[in-house]
Amino acid sequence: MLAGGVGAAKFLRGLLRVAEPTAITVVVNTGDDERFFGLAVSPDLDTITYTAAGVAHPRRGWGLRDDSFRCLEALGRFYDATWFHLGDVDLATHVYRTQRLAAGARLSTVTTEIRRAFGVTVRILPMTDDPVRTLIDTASGTLPFQEYLVRRRARPAVRRIRYRGAARARPAPGVVAAIRDATVVVIAPSNPLLSIGPLLAVRGIRRALERRRGSTVAVSPLVGGRAPTGPLARLLRRLGMRPSSLAIADCYRPFLDALVIDHRDRRDVPVLAAAGCRAIVADTLFDSDRRAAVTARRLLRTLGLA
Amino acid sequence: MLAGGVGAAKFLRGLLRVAEPTAITVVVNTGDDERFFGLAVSPDLDTITYTAAGVAHPRRGWGLRDDSFRCLEALGRFYDATWFHLGDVDLATHVYRTQRLAAGARLSTVTTEIRRAFGVTVRILPMTDDPVRTLIDTASGTLPFQEYLVRRRARPAVRRIRYRGAARARPAPGVVAAIRDATVVVIAPSNPLLSIGPLLAVRGIRRALERRRGSTVAVSPLVGGRAPTGPLARLLRRLGMRPSSLAIADCYRPFLDALVIDHRDRRDVPVLAAAGCRAIVADTLFDSDRRAAVTARRLLRTLGLA
Repeated sequence: MLAGGVGAAKFLRGLLRVAEPTAITVVVNTGDDERFFGLAVSPDLDTITYTAAGVAHPRRGWGLRDDSFRCLEALGRFYDATWFHLGDVDLATHVYRTQRLAAGARLSTVTTEIRRAFGVTVRILPMTDDPVRTLIDTASGTLPFQEYLVRRRARPAVRRIRYRGAARARPAPGVVAAIRDATVVVIAPSNPLLSIGPLLAVRGIRRALERRRGSTVAVSPLVGGRAPTGPLARLLRRLGMRPSSLAIADCYRPFLDALVIDHRDRRDVPVLAAAGCRAIVADTLFDSDRRAAVTARRLLRTLGLA
Repeated sequence: MLAGGVGAAKFLRGLLRVAEPTAITVVVNTGDDERFFGLAVSPDLDTITYTAAGVAHPRRGWGLRDDSFRCLEALGRFYDATWFHLGDVDLATHVYRTQRLAAGARLSTVTTEIRRAFGVTVRILPMTDDPVRTLIDTASGTLPFQEYLVRRRARPAVRRIRYRGAARARPAPGVVAAIRDATVVVIAPSNPLLSIGPLLAVRGIRRALERRRGSTVAVSPLVGGRAPTGPLARLLRRLGMRPSSLAIADCYRPFLDALVIDHRDRRDVPVLAAAGCRAIVADTLFDSDRRAAVTARRLLRTLGLA
């Protein structure tokens, strides 16, 4: 699976009900990684790890269930900006990651250490160990991803999205082989521009996708032409695209074999077919793990895998 | 005041009841400073800051009242050793200090920022901005201070105490002037070997004490020849000294004018006098702020200051 944060986590919860954890490798966006209070935070990696561990917050797209925010509140004594919510238990992950990176460990190594500490057997790989930063050029200036999405609630009008460092970034160890050898690559229902975009901007990853022989299937993050959470529809329009299944498929050409779309987007099937992309119609509003599991099974069955 | 941690905090609570906070400068031991989980922890500076802010834990010698330990518990997932107790609220201080030091700020600058964030008007200075480390050579090998005191509960037999880096360390900005200009220098009832020793091992501080004209008074950490908390009596014996008022005075020659001793050590008055040290007999078992205040007032009055 190629994954961002929230949307990917929702689908992963379903996938984990129908597939062996040890058979899954998740390659995760690191373009949103940020330093908060000097701590190295990898929001998407943590969301995937916590989800795979079964300790993610059940509704919010971030953090742990039953966490508290006493340290964050106390940080308010020292910092003006405490808009990025870091729980007390969550903080331990960032403290550990920060210390290990400062000691010279690679992000991929630390990611493995963290997921093992959580007892996670799903393999989780950062897309790269090199620094990549998703920057959003907006009418209010250039904003790093978290500032755009969390602090400014995706309100500023987007002009351009850049993945700084991606051109020079090498895929993390294991990423290219995982893509090459996977029976199926699933692109999670994450934002194709903000969350999957950084992955595809890493040349080695794009090349691996283009060269692989097995199927590559994306799960559309749109439901009835709208994104259940997040600014995707607005973003597509801002950048001159119609928020439709075709727009999603277009983001993943030329390596996409099929797109899982929602029943509500059924009318997109012919236009997808005309564009050479097979449509798998299913339920993509993953408001429960069960629903996500049904769609995950449908996807695997359609590919003859379950 | 020259201060270590716990003992100094107890006396400071009394002093704050009888003196203006803005008239007090505390020069604090940094020989116990340590990295835990990559975070820069300054136990004595924090104990003094939290005490001056009125937010220190009322009984424990460390940390904040009403703190929780959820992050520490979660750190147990990543680290074997979580014996050094860092509360969730306390952690914010260490996160801030770590980030500021990494950004190139001096410890003295950060210490001022932290005490101001806590609304503290007492001036708090680290003894030095340079790295000094108190090392305890024991029968079980060389141990850094926190490991000896907290993890090993001061049990290993001590052979020697070293203050690594002290010979090269320069007093932090303001320290020498504070010692020179103080009406009275009070050496807090901290462990003279473990907590005040590092301060005196910084040449510029010792020289400032030797050169100053005003009084220098120590408050004995012994009560009836024993330390109410900590390993002082045992330590003195291990190093060939009798745990008595004279042993304390000996640690502070030749710049000591008077020693505050407990009623229970009254018999030490003549031997102190013979050694040229005036004794001020008072209550030094500071089991309440009120008791500490009575002794602080006695000390100031004896010197004609209150």
